[in-house]
Amino acid sequence: MLDEEKWFTEICEEAGSAFSLRIERKLHEEHTPYQRIEIYETTDFGNLMVIDGFIMLSARDNFFYHEMMAHPVLFTHPDPKRVCIIGGGDCGTLREVLRHKGVKKVWQIEIDEQVTRLAERYFPELCEANADPRVKFRFTDGIEWMRQAKADSLDIVIVDSTDPIGPAEGLFTEAFYRDCLNALSDGGLLIQQSESPLIHMDILLPMRKAMAAAGAADVKTLFFPQCVYPSGWWSATLARKGGPIEGFRHKDVAKRAFPTRYYNEAIHQAALAMPAFFLERVRG
Amino acid sequence: MLDEEKWFTEICEEAGSAFSLRIERKLHEEHTPYQRIEIYETTDFGNLMVIDGFIMLSARDNFFYHEMMAHPVLFTHPDPKRVCIIGGGDCGTLREVLRHKGVKKVWQIEIDEQVTRLAERYFPELCEANADPRVKFRFTDGIEWMRQAKADSLDIVIVDSTDPIGPAEGLFTEAFYRDCLNALSDGGLLIQQSESPLIHMDILLPMRKAMAAAGAADVKTLFFPQCVYPSGWWSATLARKGGPIEGFRHKDVAKRAFPTRYYNEAIHQAALAMPAFFLERVRG
Repeated sequence: MLDEEKWFTEICEEAGSAFSLRIERKLHEEHTPYQRIEIYETTDFGNLMVIDGFIMLSARDNFFYHEMMAHPVLFTHPDPKRVCIIGGGDCGTLREVLRHKGVKKVWQIEIDEQVTRLAERYFPELCEANADPRVKFRFTDGIEWMRQAKADSLDIVIVDSTDPIGPAEGLFTEAFYRDCLNALSDGGLLIQQSESPLIHMDILLPMRKAMAAAGAADVKTLFFPQCVYPSGWWSATLARKGGPIEGFRHKDVAKRAFPTRYYNEAIHQAALAMPAFFLERVRG
Repeated sequence: MLDEEKWFTEICEEAGSAFSLRIERKLHEEHTPYQRIEIYETTDFGNLMVIDGFIMLSARDNFFYHEMMAHPVLFTHPDPKRVCIIGGGDCGTLREVLRHKGVKKVWQIEIDEQVTRLAERYFPELCEANADPRVKFRFTDGIEWMRQAKADSLDIVIVDSTDPIGPAEGLFTEAFYRDCLNALSDGGLLIQQSESPLIHMDILLPMRKAMAAAGAADVKTLFFPQCVYPSGWWSATLARKGGPIEGFRHKDVAKRAFPTRYYNEAIHQAALAMPAFFLERVRG
């Protein structure tokens, strides 16, 4: 049995599974107006952020998720300049986005400022680019912000949210995607984390349908490992306004001037490969 | 805290992580001359086999592993007829191998007959092809069997073993790979499960080196999800005798006459994509 003093455990009720990390100590706990945030120091995964009992990220393995939320969508767009991140308060996705020199402006819209303040303190490596003058931080409701966004004002929208329960629920709806597509310029791209392909097809498939119903011309799902999330296998779903999602800027990926730990040209291509069962469900 | 009565937990000491499945009941437990085998009925993952406290497979998600241990290696070889499986007592890999009609003979070498007897009882779907006349079951030590195998007597060797502790330790050595390469015909292929790329690079990299040192002309690692194993991300490493590993039989994969749940042409290609950190370690 796992000693509660020495392990943090997240139970995934819908899958009948649980994942635990061994901890040295709890570093912080607070209730914000939105949620309960805990920070732990683990023995092997570095610092760990937990929101409402669900693991958000560990220092050791967040690179999978953050790289895959940023680089595939940015390298799919021919010339992304204006990027909006909805959620993403830990700033890990933001750091990856800012590595793209062509990006001129990034709006980071996080509802809970404490997520960012705690990331600055406990995950400073993810926040190292926060002072970049290209970033505008807005601590406000992303759904409302997107509703008011000007048409054709963005090239990329990245929805880096928690699961579709609580404050993030409205980020998984056709109405929200419609607002995103309105804010995007023609050829613009939206990407959203879309849960585990093994456990959460009941979220993933409706999300894809809602994106299409909102007017996306094409929708594609990316698959990648993410150890600390349920099943260890995660996805992000890409939607394009005004045309099909066809290929990406291979040469720019190959000659990129910044480091990555997971992402590269072959991994980008690989992430687009649909497992047999997924293909069947998407086509069926 | 997880109630020990209701959850089976595997602790991965070397990663400071643990994975748990919710159980309905324990169906079986026994000590064989080799190991302790437990079978559980879980609430969401079907039946579960555990050996010496380590999860071997669940009914729900073993398809990832078994398909990836069989189809990539078989579709890489131009015309595989003679296959040997070392380990693989649950018969899941064997079932996938037998789907290839060109295969004429399969030797299944499992040290512990009870693994197969319990699989027949608790995982009958994996054993549905066990009566196929092409299969020869040998319940004996795979290391010794391979030492005595005739030169040029096999086209494919699949090492479907437990972790490199206990009876499987000798399966991760240069001496064993040398025996495998001797038994293989020219152009023959060996594949072995090679643990988690996130957690077990200290096993994976020496394994690749040992295969090369034993005389393999080329070595490539495949990556795929496997929820119930530590980190949820797993690998298998492919080695070829007498020449490079170049492509696979795309047309035969596309027109295959059997069902798969994970594997297909795009997934085969995707599995070969090396993450940035892995590429660096392999080259470095």
